[in-house]
Amino acid sequence: MSSIKPQTLKGFRDFLPQEARKRQYVINTLKEVFESYGFEPLETPALEYEEILLGKYGEEGDKLLYRFTDHGGRKVAMRYDQTVPLARVVAQYQNKLPMPFKRYQMQPVWRAENPQKGRFREFLQCDADIVGTKSLLADTQVIVTAIKSLEKIGFKNFKVIINDRNNFSYFQQQMNLSQEQVMDIIRSIDKLKKIGRAGVIEELGKKLESLAKAEEIIDSFASIKPTEDLLQLFNYLKEFGIEEEKMQFLPSLARGLDYYTSTIFEIEIEGYTAGSVCGGGRYDNLIGMFSKTMNRNGSWPAVGFAFGFDRILDAMEQFNLFPQDILSSATKVLVTIFSKDLKEKSLELSSRLRSNNINTELYLDEDASLEKQLKYADQKNIPFVIILGPEEVEKNVVKLRDMKTREQETATEDQLITKLRNF
Amino acid sequence: MSSIKPQTLKGFRDFLPQEARKRQYVINTLKEVFESYGFEPLETPALEYEEILLGKYGEEGDKLLYRFTDHGGRKVAMRYDQTVPLARVVAQYQNKLPMPFKRYQMQPVWRAENPQKGRFREFLQCDADIVGTKSLLADTQVIVTAIKSLEKIGFKNFKVIINDRNNFSYFQQQMNLSQEQVMDIIRSIDKLKKIGRAGVIEELGKKLESLAKAEEIIDSFASIKPTEDLLQLFNYLKEFGIEEEKMQFLPSLARGLDYYTSTIFEIEIEGYTAGSVCGGGRYDNLIGMFSKTMNRNGSWPAVGFAFGFDRILDAMEQFNLFPQDILSSATKVLVTIFSKDLKEKSLELSSRLRSNNINTELYLDEDASLEKQLKYADQKNIPFVIILGPEEVEKNVVKLRDMKTREQETATEDQLITKLRNF
Repeated sequence: MSSIKPQTLKGFRDFLPQEARKRQYVINTLKEVFESYGFEPLETPALEYEEILLGKYGEEGDKLLYRFTDHGGRKVAMRYDQTVPLARVVAQYQNKLPMPFKRYQMQPVWRAENPQKGRFREFLQCDADIVGTKSLLADTQVIVTAIKSLEKIGFKNFKVIINDRNNFSYFQQQMNLSQEQVMDIIRSIDKLKKIGRAGVIEELGKKLESLAKAEEIIDSFASIKPTEDLLQLFNYLKEFGIEEEKMQFLPSLARGLDYYTSTIFEIEIEGYTAGSVCGGGRYDNLIGMFSKTMNRNGSWPAVGFAFGFDRILDAMEQFNLFPQDILSSATKVLVTIFSKDLKEKSLELSSRLRSNNINTELYLDEDASLEKQLKYADQKNIPFVIILGPEEVEKNVVKLRDMKTREQETATEDQLITKLRNF
Repeated sequence: MSSIKPQTLKGFRDFLPQEARKRQYVINTLKEVFESYGFEPLETPALEYEEILLGKYGEEGDKLLYRFTDHGGRKVAMRYDQTVPLARVVAQYQNKLPMPFKRYQMQPVWRAENPQKGRFREFLQCDADIVGTKSLLADTQVIVTAIKSLEKIGFKNFKVIINDRNNFSYFQQQMNLSQEQVMDIIRSIDKLKKIGRAGVIEELGKKLESLAKAEEIIDSFASIKPTEDLLQLFNYLKEFGIEEEKMQFLPSLARGLDYYTSTIFEIEIEGYTAGSVCGGGRYDNLIGMFSKTMNRNGSWPAVGFAFGFDRILDAMEQFNLFPQDILSSATKVLVTIFSKDLKEKSLELSSRLRSNNINTELYLDEDASLEKQLKYADQKNIPFVIILGPEEVEKNVVKLRDMKTREQETATEDQLITKLRNF
């Protein structure tokens, strides 16, 4: 046993207190916004029957599923996303759920990806979706909720890039192409941002065996106008109070090709270059995948978005958006123990401070040196430390040390309480 | 695909919004108390190297581990508890962690148990522990934190039952028994509550082949006095302001036999009969299991507790401890859509209400009947509904429906905002 190396699996992470506190802060902030827009929490199990998940993510996805046979011989798989579980829940409880069903879900998912910078095998997904209505009002609300969430977190400059997948069919007709050709073209055009116009022309040129045709297609893409639905959507967004400069129609936005049926969008934070922090859209054919068994022919239109949770944290770090009290412990003051003889004095003081609603920690080892106790306060980012030695006890005062300035002052208990309360 | 039955695995649960909201409320309440006592959050991965977990839970435990071989041929296992991961973290990051290390952890664990009432294969564990000090002040703080947590949740009548495992060694010497005999005896005496004195005498009598000896042992157990450490602990608890009637010394409390080294305790809620809701104690030999590899001979004394999360929820249900606003949606008012023509009016109103900081939902389907929209508000426990028909629009008023009393009144927008704000 003693030769086992303490380590985590590649692509899996421990979150030590400071990191865990940041994550919880973001989760709580998002929850608050989501709930204020009527989204409700949903939790589903980490393990599902394999058949529920298998075949839903394409061949590539199936390869990345963590799956195994359980003790009862059942084939099971670990949660890979939150959309397929949502589809199962909608089919399983459809008579119990309010419709439209507005739910958010923030749970870890597992994918046997090749770990690399910013890509993990276990990561938190953070989704909000509306199931059961085709109304553009739902598309609007989803986008508004995403925007308000980012604003609440503290981001100021970001852009919602919007497109309508139906544009691609118009384009297909207009250019007299097969659906496959269009798919292939869009896959290249989707890279405009990554490889630039020249790069796309080169790639498209090879596909079409004509650079001229490639140029023509790029130009014709750029000239695509927003659909009627998109115009209406932009209008709604304005009526919901979203500033126009936050929104941009981008006819080349594709967001993969399989899943979405009309509205698609991404949100990019200005100055954050690792990629978009939010993506979503309407997917009217996915949620119904389990409902035939329920003898319900109904389609289950749906629209939603997902935040890239790790990217959001990353961008918050870049722009310094974590409030100070998240970065430090909830403890305001550490009461040290001067010696075994005086520990009762420290205990009593800490108890009185707590009953004055001051988050107080008593150092929990009566044998530790003062140096060790101060180091503890430093490591936990506790702003103040109280020292209660024989002199202070005799004079009925305490020594209060400001851990930032390293200054010490002598104070009566009343002065101490006032000071800590107002800090 | 269409023949796949939407279902969860046995022992695994979906948490639909109302249930999920209750769970989040309890988690947040506990976190708040834990952090106010200086405990900090820790998160560890769902999957660990199998060797990290294997052999730590006894033969029985190993059988219940969900384990498999991953895509890279590594043997991995799913989190079974949070104590072994804590031991790994302490060994892995010992130079980064403040000592004593006070952490809480609330994550799901997985056990291939036989599911039965109140026992699941996936359930949330909820632990708080202090690692790195033998001081009784730590034992005290752990118990105080557990008590304050239950009080914060709203429980009034509960009892902390406390014992010191060292009593068992004294008893062993006193009665001149082998360690094995003592273990066996305690296993029976631990059942006092479950099967009563007569039952224990019968069981012990068989083991000792003498009813008289069984009676003698039970009586001598009952006469065991608290150890010096326990007296000190009770004293500290009093100084921390815990009422004496909340604490009880029980010499027959055993809490299993392997793990704990001195202080052990359980908390029972009066009138809740499914079992104790909290258990914990000191375990000075467990956390060091990975540290030999780190060339550190140090022992890692530790003390902590775990709440039975599902039991806490169950008991809260029994005593009606969930606040009203947790049971209903965060939405205060639903703005219905009277007709396609009037939807913009509803949209604008909902937008104005939100900018007055009233959590407002706009119904997201312009084709739905009013009946359907009212049902939606009912299902989501939204307290008020606004109806905005042509008459109201013409008179520049709204109809406000109280979903509880089913009464409707006409109000101007100002009256509406005042009313909803004060609700």
